Amino acid sequence: MAAKRTSSMLFRAVQQSRATDSQFLRGVSGVVSQQQTTTVNRSQLPRFYSSKPEAGKSLKIVGVLYKAKQYAENPKFLGCAENALGLREWLEGLGHQYIVTDDKEGPNCELEKHIPDMDILITTPFHPAYMTPERIKKAKNLKLALTAGVGSDHINLPAASDAGITVAEISGSNTSSVAEDELLRILLLLRNYLPGWKQITAGGWDVAAVASKSYDLRDKVVATIGAGRIGYELLKRLKPFDCKQLLYWDRQSIGKAKEEETGATREPDLETLLAKCDVVSLNIPLTEKTKNMFNKELISKFKRGAYLVNNARGALVDAEAVKEACESGQLGGYSGDVWNQQPAPADHPWRHMPNHAMTPHLSGTTLDGQAGNPFFC
Amino acid sequence: MAAKRTSSMLFRAVQQSRATDSQFLRGVSGVVSQQQTTTVNRSQLPRFYSSKPEAGKSLKIVGVLYKAKQYAENPKFLGCAENALGLREWLEGLGHQYIVTDDKEGPNCELEKHIPDMDILITTPFHPAYMTPERIKKAKNLKLALTAGVGSDHINLPAASDAGITVAEISGSNTSSVAEDELLRILLLLRNYLPGWKQITAGGWDVAAVASKSYDLRDKVVATIGAGRIGYELLKRLKPFDCKQLLYWDRQSIGKAKEEETGATREPDLETLLAKCDVVSLNIPLTEKTKNMFNKELISKFKRGAYLVNNARGALVDAEAVKEACESGQLGGYSGDVWNQQPAPADHPWRHMPNHAMTPHLSGTTLDGQAGNPFFC
Repeated sequence: MAAKRTSSMLFRAVQQSRATDSQFLRGVSGVVSQQQTTTVNRSQLPRFYSSKPEAGKSLKIVGVLYKAKQYAENPKFLGCAENALGLREWLEGLGHQYIVTDDKEGPNCELEKHIPDMDILITTPFHPAYMTPERIKKAKNLKLALTAGVGSDHINLPAASDAGITVAEISGSNTSSVAEDELLRILLLLRNYLPGWKQITAGGWDVAAVASKSYDLRDKVVATIGAGRIGYELLKRLKPFDCKQLLYWDRQSIGKAKEEETGATREPDLETLLAKCDVVSLNIPLTEKTKNMFNKELISKFKRGAYLVNNARGALVDAEAVKEACESGQLGGYSGDVWNQQPAPADHPWRHMPNHAMTPHLSGTTLDGQAGNPFFC
Repeated sequence: MAAKRTSSMLFRAVQQSRATDSQFLRGVSGVVSQQQTTTVNRSQLPRFYSSKPEAGKSLKIVGVLYKAKQYAENPKFLGCAENALGLREWLEGLGHQYIVTDDKEGPNCELEKHIPDMDILITTPFHPAYMTPERIKKAKNLKLALTAGVGSDHINLPAASDAGITVAEISGSNTSSVAEDELLRILLLLRNYLPGWKQITAGGWDVAAVASKSYDLRDKVVATIGAGRIGYELLKRLKPFDCKQLLYWDRQSIGKAKEEETGATREPDLETLLAKCDVVSLNIPLTEKTKNMFNKELISKFKRGAYLVNNARGALVDAEAVKEACESGQLGGYSGDVWNQQPAPADHPWRHMPNHAMTPHLSGTTLDGQAGNPFFC
């Protein structure tokens, strides 16, 4: 099967890179649909498509990226449709066809036209091309779905696996970008920043209105749900804030060395952890198991008035339950850059709920995040 | 002289506290007008006014604090006019007169009425009662001007010193509160947070418009101007962000141990430092020497597009020069909670300049900051 051949090519590239290149850069690719995470050196990506295709073997590669319009003039802004991840010259130079579009929704979109004969699909989590089982069924030639980022939940993994499609992503590419952004959001919520800024721009000055709901991070109990790459980087950044307690919930321990480094303690029982925390940050992948995990029932286990930060995936939480908790005061505030549908519809309940500090999905796509992402050539 | 007597009473309290109490809490009082900084135990404050006044020796104590209106219902919200720093019962119980007002400006304000016969003035930097030489001249009975916070630049120090008035403040009371807030502002500016939040609340979604000006803190050059208590706490919090370089400018070194702990390097030449930095945070007191220090000339020495964070004092910078630099792009953004006049007038140029992230003055007056401030009894 073509799909299997491509997959084994990727593994061969990995093997070769390990054998021949001692300078491993940050992780490039985790193979998701086969439940293996492995790293590929940046220099291996060209090797993956290393030779000019023979006659008739030109690949059709489709990229789905958001449009940057005037912002695309910045040559560092690679992750947009106009700049096509910086791959066009290289891929076309190798004789492949490279189509990039931002039009990804509905039966008449540009993406739909290419599904039946595309060989490779490149997507990002920022402007996700949702590969449903129906679309995967139509994608008869698809061998590889590459996520230029972390988190491939927009690809239906069981369907991709059944079809023999390799789903791969760029593990670790945006770890520090996202962890930084999470600390920003924790401080924003705790310190009640936004109402102060709004006052100033509206011509006002009322210290009490802001200070009366403003807290320090110092002496608070803070947890990350998930202590993988990003969760660990967040814990490291929380360390010098002299929190009362740093906790994490994960299926496995981060190990004694990292626990000592960060001062964090593992709490295996989620509800016990939630009841203690002033701040909770989500850093787990979205899977069938974690979808809507933070529903009304679980949110009721939080300490009243706690803050929830979610830069992982919007669908980890029940959107309505979060809105209700912000309205009732069960949550003191909610901030994140991820939504259960992206772009978020204009009437999404999170746009106007109280004490939110939401943005579009961008914490992993700073200019530095793009430059440091070894996928962007 | 009465003023000298009160001053020596304060010193005696300090001496006694050192002699009799081994449990020193966080610093309570720095004596400013005599250029000495010393600490007083929380329990010593009552000792300072320890005995019921003899007949005719009741002191007139005036507090100037902002009004919290409905927010004053929170009993933890001590630093407002209504809750009077939590001192009313105690001071009145000792037979003193305690007048608290928020009315501090102009010749007919409430404060003016009490200036001629007040013995002690208690103020905060959040709603500063500006004690000009003219006011000090009228304050014939004033012995002690206490700042319930850090920074007594709203008191004219040469005039207070000439009049024998002790000016004292609560050194260290809000160190971590302010340092936290500075890190928040650094991240806010670098990561271009506010435009993303504005998009969401306005019903929009344009990742490129935000991401095209969004950077990581990682690998940046960051400096604090002033490495006292707050500057040092900021450096500690910056450490795990893997900045390219952490620098500080101060008249003296923080010492080898703190330099090793934070990874920061002293750069004695200010202009050399500014030319290197992506982010600069001000943490120096406002004095005659530092007033308007960051004027057009000095701002022109910054690396183009650098970010400036100022939670120290608004008048350290030239307000117009900052506005022009934000407009021209010489500064990538400016954030702080301090203004050259507080409350800031409705037409202050910083309210609507590009890329600002200003709030009212509040970083040192979180509820935790108030609870942790040993002055608030």
